Amino acid sequence: MPKRIRLALIGLGNVGRGFLELLTTKQETLRTRYGLELVVTAAADTSGAALDARGLDAALLLVRKRAGQGAATYPVAGRPGLSALDTVRRAHADVLLEASLTNLKDGEPGLSCIRTALTRGLHAVTANKGPLVHAYPELVALAQERGAGLGFSAAVCGALPTVNIGRRDLVACAIARIEGIFNSTTHYILTSMAEGRDYATALREAQEEGVAEADPTLDVEGWDAANKLVILANSVLGIPATLADVAVEGITRLTPNDFARAQAEGKVIKLLCTAAQEEAGYRLSVRPTPLPRGHPLVTLRGWQMGIVYHTDIMGVQFAAVDERGPVPTAAAMLRDVVNLV
Amino acid sequence: MPKRIRLALIGLGNVGRGFLELLTTKQETLRTRYGLELVVTAAADTSGAALDARGLDAALLLVRKRAGQGAATYPVAGRPGLSALDTVRRAHADVLLEASLTNLKDGEPGLSCIRTALTRGLHAVTANKGPLVHAYPELVALAQERGAGLGFSAAVCGALPTVNIGRRDLVACAIARIEGIFNSTTHYILTSMAEGRDYATALREAQEEGVAEADPTLDVEGWDAANKLVILANSVLGIPATLADVAVEGITRLTPNDFARAQAEGKVIKLLCTAAQEEAGYRLSVRPTPLPRGHPLVTLRGWQMGIVYHTDIMGVQFAAVDERGPVPTAAAMLRDVVNLV
Repeated sequence: MPKRIRLALIGLGNVGRGFLELLTTKQETLRTRYGLELVVTAAADTSGAALDARGLDAALLLVRKRAGQGAATYPVAGRPGLSALDTVRRAHADVLLEASLTNLKDGEPGLSCIRTALTRGLHAVTANKGPLVHAYPELVALAQERGAGLGFSAAVCGALPTVNIGRRDLVACAIARIEGIFNSTTHYILTSMAEGRDYATALREAQEEGVAEADPTLDVEGWDAANKLVILANSVLGIPATLADVAVEGITRLTPNDFARAQAEGKVIKLLCTAAQEEAGYRLSVRPTPLPRGHPLVTLRGWQMGIVYHTDIMGVQFAAVDERGPVPTAAAMLRDVVNLV
Repeated sequence: MPKRIRLALIGLGNVGRGFLELLTTKQETLRTRYGLELVVTAAADTSGAALDARGLDAALLLVRKRAGQGAATYPVAGRPGLSALDTVRRAHADVLLEASLTNLKDGEPGLSCIRTALTRGLHAVTANKGPLVHAYPELVALAQERGAGLGFSAAVCGALPTVNIGRRDLVACAIARIEGIFNSTTHYILTSMAEGRDYATALREAQEEGVAEADPTLDVEGWDAANKLVILANSVLGIPATLADVAVEGITRLTPNDFARAQAEGKVIKLLCTAAQEEAGYRLSVRPTPLPRGHPLVTLRGWQMGIVYHTDIMGVQFAAVDERGPVPTAAAMLRDVVNLV
């Protein structure tokens, strides 16, 4: 008999729907490979929620969401207007899956949902950077106190195990430096600018192709990448950094001249995230940086993201991913669920 | 109070000594970061063993080994002629660390040591490919039956978490293809041949620099890489493959002409390990392969090793390492110890 794990899913945007899709396609794999049966007992979106302790039909929920019908309209189980937080309070669940939008101001409503879940002893898995950036030390302490797990490998570069490598693989290492390309939208735009386009054109094309959002501010001003760096600093380097500790510079002021100059020097401009160990601690920055052609991150193209760890006893480690769409991020949440239970 | 973990260390060659070195430099890190105190209560080499339930002095053992004094000559605790297997039987230990030389014929004496340790309920951590290649399914079943852990992340590319990424991160993934460069000696030689040297010259220089062993057969004929592929096939792909299932071709018959032809086609020759999913199952091979310049493994140079996982739900994942000497492999054993206890 597989072990039955009940999930409360907050947020049915791209990632939440991607997760439902995985539940419909991977149940057999989960059962045979890990002995697990995952059921969604609560799902919340902006319309309200659907609650059923016996399990909602993930495929039905997905079909209805794709037809524009919110969770609140789910037959019988629908609860119009029920908030995300109340959904967590009322859910019969073992794991909270937090996939609501990143809110940089205060991390809400994700932060309250995670707090409430952990307090109730549920494991919490989040793809949402907001709560981690705002309250990482608090959430880790709360999880430990309640004997619950907190999974967030999806929050830093989706399926690329940036956090897991840092925490589980680089055991006992001193890390002198982390370098990364953590934002695929800006990376796509920079690759396009390196081919000769100006910023406005590259951005417009990226928007037309669905790579960049209509309001690309968080990406192009460097904040999305800075969030990820803050999470790595907390979780891998063990320092209680916040966004205020990161020197952030976006890509909006780069000109074709900058690219021409870099090219003449045999370099390629990337939006580089860096955590560099210095006497006083780690210096954190996100800024456009010309990298020499031998640098591992220079080999990345288009959508790709990557990370380099410079360690004392495990050499220089490099990991990169070519992933598209929300499914890899949803798959990373699934990874956290399986590893936690 | 840190948790005290007693270690039985079999094999005091480069990796075993590297592990002792880490014990002398990383005790403080292990205590503060993981709450662990690691003590070696048994150590064996070709001279015999040293046994002391209260703990041997790792620094002293290291100094003596470097001075050519075997474990059997260790003051008071020395046991001349005690075999590796008897050392495991008599050790007061929680974890076996198996770092003896790879024996491709029958995996001994490592295999018997691991079997004995697991049977006694000890965790076993090995950097030795022989026992895994010969008896992976048996050892995993035995560990499970005894409630013991089996760690072998050091056996496939040292500190590069090839196995861990495959097992712990690519959760629920279907893996269509694994590609890897798993042997640094041949990679070094091929890099040198791509610069115009013939095989004999490149090998001789690699030997002079200490990269290649005096008898380089296992490396240059592809068997070391094939071993690693077999371990990945068993542990990540879940297929009970043996060396007989791998089509193996080494690099000894490559000529400058081969490199010239590859270069003319814009390709680079690598000793590529491949597990490719086909209708009838995975096809395993190790052979010199011209790779196009866009391939992630083409960017690797000299000593570096790397792996590419082609997945269905987590995109294409690439990981690589630049590591030298035995310390990273010893550090990978330390990683397994910490993750197991």
